[in-house]
Amino acid sequence: MKFISKHRRRAKISLIDYSKNSYQEKTIKSISECFPFKNKPTVTWINVDGLQQKQALEQLGKCYGFHHLVIEDIYHTRQRPKVEDYEEYFYIVLRMVYYQNNNINQLSSEQISLVLSSNYVISFQEGIRGDVFDPVRKRIKSGKNRIVNFGTDYLTYSLIDAIVDNYFTVIEKLGDKIEDLEEELLTEPTPETLKNIDNLKRIIIDLRRSIWPLREVISRMQREDSPLIKDSTKVYLRDVYDHTVLVIENIETLRDILAGMIEIYLSSISNKMNEIIKVLTIISTIFIPLTFVVGLYGMNFDFMPELRSPWGYPAVLLIMASVAIGMLFYFKKKKWL
Amino acid sequence: MKFISKHRRRAKISLIDYSKNSYQEKTIKSISECFPFKNKPTVTWINVDGLQQKQALEQLGKCYGFHHLVIEDIYHTRQRPKVEDYEEYFYIVLRMVYYQNNNINQLSSEQISLVLSSNYVISFQEGIRGDVFDPVRKRIKSGKNRIVNFGTDYLTYSLIDAIVDNYFTVIEKLGDKIEDLEEELLTEPTPETLKNIDNLKRIIIDLRRSIWPLREVISRMQREDSPLIKDSTKVYLRDVYDHTVLVIENIETLRDILAGMIEIYLSSISNKMNEIIKVLTIISTIFIPLTFVVGLYGMNFDFMPELRSPWGYPAVLLIMASVAIGMLFYFKKKKWL
Amino acid sequence: MKFISKHRRRAKISLIDYSKNSYQEKTIKSISECFPFKNKPTVTWINVDGLQQKQALEQLGKCYGFHHLVIEDIYHTRQRPKVEDYEEYFYIVLRMVYYQNNNINQLSSEQISLVLSSNYVISFQEGIRGDVFDPVRKRIKSGKNRIVNFGTDYLTYSLIDAIVDNYFTVIEKLGDKIEDLEEELLTEPTPETLKNIDNLKRIIIDLRRSIWPLREVISRMQREDSPLIKDSTKVYLRDVYDHTVLVIENIETLRDILAGMIEIYLSSISNKMNEIIKVLTIISTIFIPLTFVVGLYGMNFDFMPELRSPWGYPAVLLIMASVAIGMLFYFKKKKWL
Amino acid sequence: MKFISKHRRRAKISLIDYSKNSYQEKTIKSISECFPFKNKPTVTWINVDGLQQKQALEQLGKCYGFHHLVIEDIYHTRQRPKVEDYEEYFYIVLRMVYYQNNNINQLSSEQISLVLSSNYVISFQEGIRGDVFDPVRKRIKSGKNRIVNFGTDYLTYSLIDAIVDNYFTVIEKLGDKIEDLEEELLTEPTPETLKNIDNLKRIIIDLRRSIWPLREVISRMQREDSPLIKDSTKVYLRDVYDHTVLVIENIETLRDILAGMIEIYLSSISNKMNEIIKVLTIISTIFIPLTFVVGLYGMNFDFMPELRSPWGYPAVLLIMASVAIGMLFYFKKKKWL
Amino acid sequence: MKFISKHRRRAKISLIDYSKNSYQEKTIKSISECFPFKNKPTVTWINVDGLQQKQALEQLGKCYGFHHLVIEDIYHTRQRPKVEDYEEYFYIVLRMVYYQNNNINQLSSEQISLVLSSNYVISFQEGIRGDVFDPVRKRIKSGKNRIVNFGTDYLTYSLIDAIVDNYFTVIEKLGDKIEDLEEELLTEPTPETLKNIDNLKRIIIDLRRSIWPLREVISRMQREDSPLIKDSTKVYLRDVYDHTVLVIENIETLRDILAGMIEIYLSSISNKMNEIIKVLTIISTIFIPLTFVVGLYGMNFDFMPELRSPWGYPAVLLIMASVAIGMLFYFKKKKWL
Repeated sequence: MKFISKHRRRAKISLIDYSKNSYQEKTIKSISECFPFKNKPTVTWINVDGLQQKQALEQLGKCYGFHHLVIEDIYHTRQRPKVEDYEEYFYIVLRMVYYQNNNINQLSSEQISLVLSSNYVISFQEGIRGDVFDPVRKRIKSGKNRIVNFGTDYLTYSLIDAIVDNYFTVIEKLGDKIEDLEEELLTEPTPETLKNIDNLKRIIIDLRRSIWPLREVISRMQREDSPLIKDSTKVYLRDVYDHTVLVIENIETLRDILAGMIEIYLSSISNKMNEIIKVLTIISTIFIPLTFVVGLYGMNFDFMPELRSPWGYPAVLLIMASVAIGMLFYFKKKKWL
Repeated sequence: MKFISKHRRRAKISLIDYSKNSYQEKTIKSISECFPFKNKPTVTWINVDGLQQKQALEQLGKCYGFHHLVIEDIYHTRQRPKVEDYEEYFYIVLRMVYYQNNNINQLSSEQISLVLSSNYVISFQEGIRGDVFDPVRKRIKSGKNRIVNFGTDYLTYSLIDAIVDNYFTVIEKLGDKIEDLEEELLTEPTPETLKNIDNLKRIIIDLRRSIWPLREVISRMQREDSPLIKDSTKVYLRDVYDHTVLVIENIETLRDILAGMIEIYLSSISNKMNEIIKVLTIISTIFIPLTFVVGLYGMNFDFMPELRSPWGYPAVLLIMASVAIGMLFYFKKKKWL
Repeated sequence: MKFISKHRRRAKISLIDYSKNSYQEKTIKSISECFPFKNKPTVTWINVDGLQQKQALEQLGKCYGFHHLVIEDIYHTRQRPKVEDYEEYFYIVLRMVYYQNNNINQLSSEQISLVLSSNYVISFQEGIRGDVFDPVRKRIKSGKNRIVNFGTDYLTYSLIDAIVDNYFTVIEKLGDKIEDLEEELLTEPTPETLKNIDNLKRIIIDLRRSIWPLREVISRMQREDSPLIKDSTKVYLRDVYDHTVLVIENIETLRDILAGMIEIYLSSISNKMNEIIKVLTIISTIFIPLTFVVGLYGMNFDFMPELRSPWGYPAVLLIMASVAIGMLFYFKKKKWL
Repeated sequence: MKFISKHRRRAKISLIDYSKNSYQEKTIKSISECFPFKNKPTVTWINVDGLQQKQALEQLGKCYGFHHLVIEDIYHTRQRPKVEDYEEYFYIVLRMVYYQNNNINQLSSEQISLVLSSNYVISFQEGIRGDVFDPVRKRIKSGKNRIVNFGTDYLTYSLIDAIVDNYFTVIEKLGDKIEDLEEELLTEPTPETLKNIDNLKRIIIDLRRSIWPLREVISRMQREDSPLIKDSTKVYLRDVYDHTVLVIENIETLRDILAGMIEIYLSSISNKMNEIIKVLTIISTIFIPLTFVVGLYGMNFDFMPELRSPWGYPAVLLIMASVAIGMLFYFKKKKWL
Repeated sequence: MKFISKHRRRAKISLIDYSKNSYQEKTIKSISECFPFKNKPTVTWINVDGLQQKQALEQLGKCYGFHHLVIEDIYHTRQRPKVEDYEEYFYIVLRMVYYQNNNINQLSSEQISLVLSSNYVISFQEGIRGDVFDPVRKRIKSGKNRIVNFGTDYLTYSLIDAIVDNYFTVIEKLGDKIEDLEEELLTEPTPETLKNIDNLKRIIIDLRRSIWPLREVISRMQREDSPLIKDSTKVYLRDVYDHTVLVIENIETLRDILAGMIEIYLSSISNKMNEIIKVLTIISTIFIPLTFVVGLYGMNFDFMPELRSPWGYPAVLLIMASVAIGMLFYFKKKKWL
């Protein structure tokens, strides 16, 4: 999981301003277009997608009165999820995870920052991946949804909810991959399989690191005693908190399953070795005594009466057959065959 | 453990209304039949078995004044056990576990939601499995039981108690299965045995996930300072809490036993390998030197005086016998035989 | 560790009533004989040994005003250690452990319930094993002991102390057994040894389950703010608490030792395998090349000049001896011999 | 990680005195030069680099009124990170880590002590490594920075921040080394590799020991209710606290990765053994039966009709070829080839 | 670690009475000599070295008014470290560790009890080992030390400090032993090495058991709100607390190192096995095919044209040489040579 993205796209800024009765959508070209909305009583949601222009960021921060540490944290996108109360506004950091190039072995995460005030929400995405907030946007646009009746805190809840929902998608894919690996483990385990399991373990560790502090963030927002978060919204936060706990539990389950898979892999390796050694032992223990017998009658002593007897050869053949059959019975009894 | 059931039966709704002196039982065809009971001072217990008709659910919820998140949680049956205090009523989520098709390798769970108010209790089951509440129903019907003297909180306790009791049944079966596996482990361990142990480990993990939050739910209900839960009932909650802890301890014990079994399995595998290699070594080390000797006198040199002696053959036989017997003594001393 | 005893003896009930100056001992035939002592200001200790007659139990409970849940818990002897405050009296559950048939591999436990009131203590034993309370009885009878100067709370402390002391005896035996196993491990480890270690591990787990909650019970009694437990007695409870912690620590030490023993067992197994393979390798690598050489001169080619030379045979013998000695030196250098 | 440095350089003492408008820098030759700054209202930062002259230390301590335990702790440089409130001043101990001789296998740490008062900060370094505080010094000198507007608490924050930043550098190098080892593990693991992994594990353990208490130190400073630490600075302490948590998380991740690497190493060792045994088995099982056959017809019986037949030799060759080919097919089927 | 010492020496009792200006030292023959010092305002330190005369102990206890549980705890020397507040005095139990007969494999511990009152300190040692308090005694005698200016609480601190310092000595020796074992592990690991590692692990466990509760004891003394421990002394207790934490951390580090050593041992064992099997495989795979070839031409068929050719023998030798060289190349490629 790399934290700092190397290729930052040019930022796309969009603004949605809505209330129960109004709806306005805008694509922002210049930061200054946002300024008039600062004190509008309606809910304003500014989404900044891509963070490469630090200057624009600072302009926006200055207009809306952000602490300069907030601007630093938005820009340096390797923060842990956290929530900070600056009285006038809340600063919330979350992490959104996704698979790079849809490759399940390359989990990446980007930082999403939210600033929640009484009449606006500003969200900052690194903007590498497609937009996780699309469903929220649609619900606002449709206008009939509960979302337009509530304030900025409900909007914030909706955004967090969208991010937590995204975790479920990521975990589901991981679960499918693990099922494939289990199949592979039972039919034909290779050293490659172990490497894959180990890789998934690391992804699970990364996921835990992103989601654990998120749980704490939501829990703190619930306990927060600020006019910015209304009691009616706290019920919804409790709901998204429950979802987060469910994500964590699923991750823990996957972790336990992976641990069990390593155990089975190691045991299957030693089973295979067992079987190989068994074959070696069976062949050797049958033929080594027989080879001794034929060597015995290959000796060139002048006085070996058996060699002169016409029944010598068939007798030796018979003896050897008996020894071989006896051995086979012994192995049968030992359950090696 | 799959959370969402695929085949939902048509819902069956039953209503029991009772007090110390009265008893009424009804099978509900239309949701509206429930409405008159809303404000009746007697204890009303509505049991909804099967959740496929969301519309009916919403109707019921609206009549009884549920928060729409409650309705969502009842419908989406993958919640964790929890209790939520909505002042007018408590919303409680529990999980009931059972073996699918009586197959011990397929543990499933369904969600049971309870809404506890001052004069009614509504319980929602997914309705896949037979009814776990039957014993409670019988006790009410008999009329002589303590249950008819107490209010809705005691009824709720009885329902939770029935669910916890069900865990004991599930664990007992698991214990039997583990004993069978132990037997198998000591007589004839196969790779299959390990797979079975690993499978049981997962079931144990699933069980822990269901029962741990239940403990917390009951503990919170005990501490709750609400008129809905009377002090006299809290003594009973303490009792069911003790049972839950006992379930958890039994689960932990089973987990420890399974961990020990894996250790024994792995060690028995390497013991077996040991024995096979021992046989190989004994046969090889006895016959390889003998084969060398007989090869020696199979050489075609013109001048090998031993070959001409009449005592050569018996002497060689004697020597070889001594070597073989010496080897056997050595192995005896090393305790390989 | 089985919880429910199958063969319950007929209950034996004994009553001791004492104060600083008086002493009375009675064997109770009928429950009603106990009733007059209910309100006597002297300390009354009723000991019920064997719980098969539930009816008698209920009679006693009714007379002394027990909550019916208490009676249930006394009768169903698989409770966890706990203490419950019913204001008029304390209900305390403890577990006493012992080896069934003096067989160290079969640890059992029985439940001991205590009811502590201001002027009486009633103790209930399952009554399978000999009496753990005998020393207490003797101390009361001797009359000179501190015990007769204090009230029911000090008697309760004495009973708990007797049970905790019993743990020390059990652990000591376990320690001896572990030392035997260590001896066995170092001289001649067999798969049987591992099974024994695993069995002891389970016993340790069972012991922990019994003693951990006991610690909590005593700790809660110390913190309890009730006239039933006087401050002067709390000093003694602190003492028995310290003993309990010592028991727990000893158990943890034994657990760590067992874990180390498994490690040593596994390593000794692979050492043994190592040695066997070493013997196989030494014999094989010495004789396989020699066997090749003798085979070489056993070939029947018409033109093999060595075969005709009178020095051929001794030369070959010499070469083979050199090869064998060279090999032995190599193994010496590799420290395989 | 050794605690006590053996070669202590002569101490270098530098003094910086600044306010919003003034800046003064001095290299101190005699301790007494510091005394006049004691009560100056401007911010005075004295940095003592090298602690070998205990006498000078005591002089300084006496002048500035340090508790003699503080002087002891500054001198004996094996303290754990901690913060102590002496009302007039704070005494803070931190640990700075670095690689000795740039060798990644030799992590060392030195103790850095800070004394924070209302108008001065005194920092003590062991002075083995180059100066970690250089960037702070530059920022003060430049004069335009936020640092000159704030007091001693902000300066202290800056110094702590410099130390925490240094951890990131150290961890980054460690991460690179681990990646190299992973490469090695996948291509050609040797026992050396395992020793390297184990060594890194110890370094990680040492790092954890230094950074964990640092987290606590910063957290306590945030909660401290003293006029020495202003609320405006606490926001910055929260920031450096977040960085510390990030360091800890990175260390934990590296630890998990190393644990996984050991697992892969052990499994790769047994894979290699597997392969070797496979080759042995294939060669042996093909040739041992063939050697028996050729031995059979090397016997010297007078009556062996096959030996007289002109087709005997080609027939035997054919039979042996078939056996060998059959064996190869069998191995192919078993996936050993 | 055995708790109860078998051979108790006759007790030696010494008394030191001092204040800022006075110093008196006495060897006590009869307990009654101590009584006059009970109410002297100067600091009296009585050290009892050897606990075999319980009667004398009780006499002393009665005179100084100890609770009889205190006397019991002093006499039964297997208490855990603890501190108990009896208002008039503190009773403190500590454990001092040492190597029996200077043998690092036999760690023992003895109990040291301290009774701290406003004007006297009484210390009880089991008296098996030489005196750990000698340095304290010297410092008092010298008279110039800080110790004579402070009261009984500072004396108590000094005694505890002497015990904690002793832990550092013990751990240092342990560290040396572990370094030796590491050396041994890398050069020539034997099963003996593993047994040594396991033994050290147990010693570490014992050490943890002694030092962990000590930490708690000191921490409780710091928080204690009693006139017996002055605030000025609490600063010193904080110092010794830090030392205790340092001891604990060092112990944890050693534990981690030992765990890593076991891993390396096990892996070195399987490396050795690997190498042995490699030699076996190389020799076998080279010679088994060659032996087959020479056997082939040892057959006695009448019609084997190769045997008649004069080039037969050299040709066969050439073929065999090629096979052997080819094999060697194959092994080279596989990196087995």
